[in-house]
Amino acid sequence: MHLVIGVDLGGTKFAAGAMTADGRQAFAFQSELTRAEEGADAVVARMAQLIDKVIADTIAETGAQRADFHGIGIGAPGPLRRKDGVVVVAPNLGWHDYPLSARLAAATGMTVTLDNDANCATLGEWWIGAARGAKNVVGITIGTGIGGGLIIDGRLYHGASDVAGEIGHTTIETAGRRCTCGNYGCLEAYASGPAIAERAREALDSNVRSLLRTIAGADLSALTAQQVYQAAQDGDELAREVVRDTARYLGAGVANLLNLFNPDVVVLAGGVTEAGELLLAPLRAEARRRAFRPAVDAARIVPGALGGRAGVVGAVAAFIAEHPVPA
Amino acid sequence: MHLVIGVDLGGTKFAAGAMTADGRQAFAFQSELTRAEEGADAVVARMAQLIDKVIADTIAETGAQRADFHGIGIGAPGPLRRKDGVVVVAPNLGWHDYPLSARLAAATGMTVTLDNDANCATLGEWWIGAARGAKNVVGITIGTGIGGGLIIDGRLYHGASDVAGEIGHTTIETAGRRCTCGNYGCLEAYASGPAIAERAREALDSNVRSLLRTIAGADLSALTAQQVYQAAQDGDELAREVVRDTARYLGAGVANLLNLFNPDVVVLAGGVTEAGELLLAPLRAEARRRAFRPAVDAARIVPGALGGRAGVVGAVAAFIAEHPVPA
Repeated sequence: MHLVIGVDLGGTKFAAGAMTADGRQAFAFQSELTRAEEGADAVVARMAQLIDKVIADTIAETGAQRADFHGIGIGAPGPLRRKDGVVVVAPNLGWHDYPLSARLAAATGMTVTLDNDANCATLGEWWIGAARGAKNVVGITIGTGIGGGLIIDGRLYHGASDVAGEIGHTTIETAGRRCTCGNYGCLEAYASGPAIAERAREALDSNVRSLLRTIAGADLSALTAQQVYQAAQDGDELAREVVRDTARYLGAGVANLLNLFNPDVVVLAGGVTEAGELLLAPLRAEARRRAFRPAVDAARIVPGALGGRAGVVGAVAAFIAEHPVPA
Repeated sequence: MHLVIGVDLGGTKFAAGAMTADGRQAFAFQSELTRAEEGADAVVARMAQLIDKVIADTIAETGAQRADFHGIGIGAPGPLRRKDGVVVVAPNLGWHDYPLSARLAAATGMTVTLDNDANCATLGEWWIGAARGAKNVVGITIGTGIGGGLIIDGRLYHGASDVAGEIGHTTIETAGRRCTCGNYGCLEAYASGPAIAERAREALDSNVRSLLRTIAGADLSALTAQQVYQAAQDGDELAREVVRDTARYLGAGVANLLNLFNPDVVVLAGGVTEAGELLLAPLRAEARRRAFRPAVDAARIVPGALGGRAGVVGAVAAFIAEHPVPA
């Protein structure tokens, strides 16, 4: 067997699993809390333990041997440098110029590759998911932040310094909301999970009646995007308005990508997709209104097929793209 | 000798010239008024005459033979279909589904390729101009409209239906100015030549003292972006403010491209570059403020080196990319 381990590192948890190099079989997917406050080396030590467990579970399940595992692909928050496997800045982890690949390679004795988490999620959907086999793909992952990845001609596009695809940090309002990146008017400042919750809170300030008051209780600061989707699905007008606005912002962002990249597929992934067609339908309509007809006609705009597994799957594919493995 | 003809078709004039396939020598560049009102076939007939003249002049200058000319590359306003050489819509020409390549091939007896005019300008700057040999390049051509082209890994990127690179029609204000494309808040609606003139006229409405009143005379409707740059260079405060705003809008657009594409070079071309450093310096500053540091550090933001010839040069390069010619 030819197996590769994938790891998806997030601020809250990290996940790992094994896959055959042909992408057909997946084994022992599991996750653990990141506990970034314990420091980067402690996170890597627990990551190595989880990988050991993935290997042991996969061996138990398949009868594979340890030598069948070719290496580890990790997806981590950017900006990062793929070449030497360094996470340059990861605010959610508190990391700065951390040599993640080298540390994990030392801890596991295996070859490690590093790529951006949203790149990996996009690559995963291209490899065996909703954008399978498409030539040019834009992936947008909407969660705590908004990440993106670009597949061009069947390969991840990284740009000159591994920054390419930062869709969340493109300006859609030049004098708009302040973004966590320091810029104003980024797509992320309008349509990330926390931004959706914030817009809902602002709307509640001026509107007494809404299911959201009941759902959120006394502490509005704990309101989540998921609660907004839930209330919208239950017919709450204020929540529906917030979801419609979210669709307009994301639709403008997607239209920009249609006119710039003219992709075959746009894959939307992450928590925001839990809103389903309530969000997707007006998002598609807004993108259609804004973008050029031949670009709209060429592109399918679809939710991801791999759910929370896309990052791990894509990290495996990213490893294979750098270190070809017999399929 | 191995020679290729380039043609750059615009709403006002078209230009043509011959180049050696190695890009080192250019001959007989000349242009003529388009006179679109005479109809597409009449334009093509005059285009064929101009090409004949380019060939005759080149032969006279170099001693080349007719058989040394391998074909014709045209750059035309999009959207268009490269595969069958059809201009789908060209509002400035009044063309709709016009088979430009086939008609010009019939009129000249030569092989013809078609590509977008802004793509050609970008490719020209990559081939022998300001972005020579760079791996990943974004080209932005600012004139009556704002066009763009993307070079990825040393090749023009066209996307699924030849729309890619429509930088002018990306939204920078979701509820912004109406654009000629029907959308609201496009970069083109703020920073094209006519948009710059329009913003200057609006500023004049509320501000009595400005050199622009003297320059433009009684008929403000004839005010041009060039006059705004001139007044700004002469120290007029209102004109300087308009140029600064233009730089802010373009800077936001460039920052979006830095974060999405992470290019090695951004080439700015077209009339707007006549403003020189008065525009470029604040544009670079705005892009730096908005984009991620590793993307800013990786990219040179430069004016084009080929001036009005970029389109013809790039049309030659686009022909060669499709029909390899010995250099």
